[in-house]
Amino acid sequence: MIIVKVGGSVFSDKKGEPENFDHETVSNIAREIAKFYPREDFIIVHGGGSFGHPEAKRYEIREGLPKEWETAHYRRIGFTLTHQAMLRANAKFIETFVGENLPAFSVSTSSVFITENGEVSYGDLEVIERLLDLKFIPVLFGDVSIDLAKGIDILSGDQIITYLAKMLEPEKVIFLMDVDGIYDGKPGEGRLIQELRKEEIDSLLERLHCTSAGTDVTGGICNKLGEAKKIAEHSEVWFVNGKVPGRLSGAIRGDGFGTRIKM
Amino acid sequence: MIIVKVGGSVFSDKKGEPENFDHETVSNIAREIAKFYPREDFIIVHGGGSFGHPEAKRYEIREGLPKEWETAHYRRIGFTLTHQAMLRANAKFIETFVGENLPAFSVSTSSVFITENGEVSYGDLEVIERLLDLKFIPVLFGDVSIDLAKGIDILSGDQIITYLAKMLEPEKVIFLMDVDGIYDGKPGEGRLIQELRKEEIDSLLERLHCTSAGTDVTGGICNKLGEAKKIAEHSEVWFVNGKVPGRLSGAIRGDGFGTRIKM
Repeated sequence: MIIVKVGGSVFSDKKGEPENFDHETVSNIAREIAKFYPREDFIIVHGGGSFGHPEAKRYEIREGLPKEWETAHYRRIGFTLTHQAMLRANAKFIETFVGENLPAFSVSTSSVFITENGEVSYGDLEVIERLLDLKFIPVLFGDVSIDLAKGIDILSGDQIITYLAKMLEPEKVIFLMDVDGIYDGKPGEGRLIQELRKEEIDSLLERLHCTSAGTDVTGGICNKLGEAKKIAEHSEVWFVNGKVPGRLSGAIRGDGFGTRIKM
Repeated sequence: MIIVKVGGSVFSDKKGEPENFDHETVSNIAREIAKFYPREDFIIVHGGGSFGHPEAKRYEIREGLPKEWETAHYRRIGFTLTHQAMLRANAKFIETFVGENLPAFSVSTSSVFITENGEVSYGDLEVIERLLDLKFIPVLFGDVSIDLAKGIDILSGDQIITYLAKMLEPEKVIFLMDVDGIYDGKPGEGRLIQELRKEEIDSLLERLHCTSAGTDVTGGICNKLGEAKKIAEHSEVWFVNGKVPGRLSGAIRGDGFGTRIKM
């Protein structure tokens, strides 16, 4: 089984129009997956892009639910609107995959996972496992979440993948990004790292000045590397460019161009 | 806590245009609920109407997943399209409730429940219970389901309610219909039954010629009464007209017009 993360920046321009969706890129991704389905099982997890982020930010979902009724009520409304925005992004994924004759099936992240300070504390994978048995392609997404500590929070696509990898031990986890992989420095400046052993991740995190406080000047790469380190305990991890046709196929086959983290 | 079922025929005309939605009726329902929220907790479950039924029928979802690949693949595609149609109905509910300032939150039935021959065999209510604790209004819907016996099936809104009533023991379950309640005969011909004790349900089922084989000439009322009999073990049950403003409020208060099944 292979888990594919489609980063928000791959299918959507966060700085563009509200709810813009790059149909051509997602069609290409679906077509590459169709070459390997049903021989190979897939789970897709996508991010928020221009769909979930603006609402989540506007309503300050990450601040949780306060005791004071008016602010809490405002956040509750924002919580539900953020989920609906993510369902609209998800519907476009499902439609595009079905257009390529793939039985992609929407699983609502917030119906299945509960977090504690933004990390999965509980997830019911029963439906997801049975969908895989029946040769469906479950499609999850970064979403709002009920949170044991804060009442409500955001559960990122990357966190979902870390949890799924731990529980389901996929053969491979592939992160689709809008750059060619992990760079030894800022993307475009540093050198692309094509192979990385999981033991080398810590020293790379240091070289990139990733602190535990999460200072991140390299486009979210510190967080991604941190999650990748956990995932690499169970699965091979790839970071490839989701905007370039063929790169996903290469990662699936195992001879692709990008960053490969060997177990 | 009160569970409200909004029947498909209340918010949609099954014989009308595809995906028609009676916004005015659902607005009225939301406004009546708003008069009692947050004093009272609510769960909403809605049916399919002109959204889910056409797809479910066309792809013969209830036939399950056969071994033969081509037919199974066709059904898988239909399974995912039926769910997406139900999510579109659900989005209209959420939008209308949020328009009345109610924090209605979409819970995807198929992400949470697994059936066996169409009856709930497993349901993870963790998220639903926490949503209620945090003063959200969970909104579920009749949906497709992973089925232990047939691979896939349909889970009706009424079945969901029977399961929720058993597990959560609500104070009251209110079925909104497009008629005034349960009739002693065909709607419009028989006499409206205003009060019914749960011990009287069996003899009414006999009078209505409801057989165990499910012959049903009274507009689905045999099935509804059968479920109501199970629910009445835990909760008071009301059947009221969802198209007539004020009837839902009457059932919530307890002095309404319709059919009341006392425990």
